[in-house]
Amino acid sequence: MAAGRAVRAEQVSATRELILTAAERLFAERGVYAVSNRQVGEAAGQGNNTAVSYHFGTKADLVRAIIRKHAARIEEIRARLLAGIGDSTDVRDWVDCLVRPVPEHLAALGSPTWYARFCAQVATDPALHEIMVEESLSSPSMRQIVEGLRRCLPELPVEVRAERGEMARHLILHVSAERERALADNSPTPRTSWQAAASGLADAIIGLWLAPVTPER
Amino acid sequence: MAAGRAVRAEQVSATRELILTAAERLFAERGVYAVSNRQVGEAAGQGNNTAVSYHFGTKADLVRAIIRKHAARIEEIRARLLAGIGDSTDVRDWVDCLVRPVPEHLAALGSPTWYARFCAQVATDPALHEIMVEESLSSPSMRQIVEGLRRCLPELPVEVRAERGEMARHLILHVSAERERALADNSPTPRTSWQAAASGLADAIIGLWLAPVTPER
Repeated sequence: MAAGRAVRAEQVSATRELILTAAERLFAERGVYAVSNRQVGEAAGQGNNTAVSYHFGTKADLVRAIIRKHAARIEEIRARLLAGIGDSTDVRDWVDCLVRPVPEHLAALGSPTWYARFCAQVATDPALHEIMVEESLSSPSMRQIVEGLRRCLPELPVEVRAERGEMARHLILHVSAERERALADNSPTPRTSWQAAASGLADAIIGLWLAPVTPER
Repeated sequence: MAAGRAVRAEQVSATRELILTAAERLFAERGVYAVSNRQVGEAAGQGNNTAVSYHFGTKADLVRAIIRKHAARIEEIRARLLAGIGDSTDVRDWVDCLVRPVPEHLAALGSPTWYARFCAQVATDPALHEIMVEESLSSPSMRQIVEGLRRCLPELPVEVRAERGEMARHLILHVSAERERALADNSPTPRTSWQAAASGLADAIIGLWLAPVTPER
């Protein structure tokens, strides 16, 4: 009986993984709303039409599950990078910890990837946007970076810090999504690797954080 | 007969405008794909279920018509700003011409606006993304700015210029969309006006353009 339960748990876990992978790919290639649960189920090889809702519930629940799967690995990368910089007061170190985890994760997945295009859609969708915000607020490593940048840039007004933090997140997400799309389309990209793309992002985001602030009129 | 045709043309033009306005609002608030042509027609007060397809064709055609309506006004603002800077070799002048038109246009529309949230969805949607790229490539004022920045920053490698130009576009679009969403939700915003938001964007984008380039390894 115990062995039977273990086998069933393993089957469930394998089915869930198949569904997550199929959903992410279809969402990235055709659009989160253009694809139905039934289409995801078919692409995941599930004969049963209701497999996706059975395993994940609503589309929002499925979206959240895809994000959490990747977020856990991105969080591990960021924790490792943060362990390497300690109490640094160099903006570049904190920006590296902010920028590198997503491109490094995408590089590790091998080509092609779908996650960045999927996330860009979720972040701009009126119904799903909140999921992205919640998941990103729950990241301990992101809170550590916000605090590290505050210590590096104490003179920056708090609202400018909030504004530039938001800008950095937009850049990491949308530059990654554009690069992913270009790779999928065999279009030219400004950089030859995810690592080089991360370097370009880091340069720009350091410039953004260090830019002088024009006082509000 | 001629008067009759003029009246009919005016009616058609008014109907199209009602449909464009209703579509933009529903797309921004509920999602471009979550809303059907029938729902757009109803919100625009059209009794006939096929009014939207009759006047605009497919969803992609409707999306393009919304973008063109706004793009014409944004182009006018940018042309006016460009006329004021002549052959400037100051990066700040060119960045101002790049950054200010969208926030200025949104400010002129009065609160609430829907266009920035709509555009952010279109830019990240796999099926609609291309429309945004085509419309932006066809802008003469954008070509002028690309050329102006090239003259200001001749030492910047061509691929870094492409990369940073793309980054600036992401920032203008997604910062505007986030601000618009926050205003619609009565959430706090880092800036008190669209003008101040433009100033924050310009500061950051100047920092981004002027940032040193780490050579690719």
